[in-house]
Amino acid sequence: MSYTVQVVIMPLKELLDPQGKAVMGGLENLGLRSVSDVRVGKNITLQVDAASGEEAKSIGEEAAKKLLANAVMEYFEVTVL
Amino acid sequence: MSYTVQVVIMPLKELLDPQGKAVMGGLENLGLRSVSDVRVGKNITLQVDAASGEEAKSIGEEAAKKLLANAVMEYFEVTVL
Repeated sequence: MSYTVQVVIMPLKELLDPQGKAVMGGLENLGLRSVSDVRVGKNITLQVDAASGEEAKSIGEEAAKKLLANAVMEYFEVTVL
Repeated sequence: MSYTVQVVIMPLKELLDPQGKAVMGGLENLGLRSVSDVRVGKNITLQVDAASGEEAKSIGEEAAKKLLANAVMEYFEVTVL
């Protein structure tokens, strides 16, 4: 069966996020001053053929660990949709 | 009150996603052959000061429309966490 697996990858909370800071500056220039922090990460969806949702999730976690996320700077969350 | 608003931005389904294709090639090289499609988008979290969750969501939608997403190539979903 085919599962849709969502992998969300975000910069670690301890680290600065220069891209997020730049986006916040842009929002301020547009007049959206109620935004106090922005963090920018990736959202990756995988179509996975697996026997069960759990197997699909473990394949998504393997993909995130081996290729998609950089554990030094990022953390990830895997969800089966 | 401060709300965390998540904006997920993905390439439109009708369009090719070359970055996703490259990631899929990488996963195949790593032996993860059960992945049949990959799409790469952005996940942006905003800290929004608003009176209600609905107001926070509408600020997130405004930010997505005006700055974060390119409606020609991308669609977005806004969620208040």
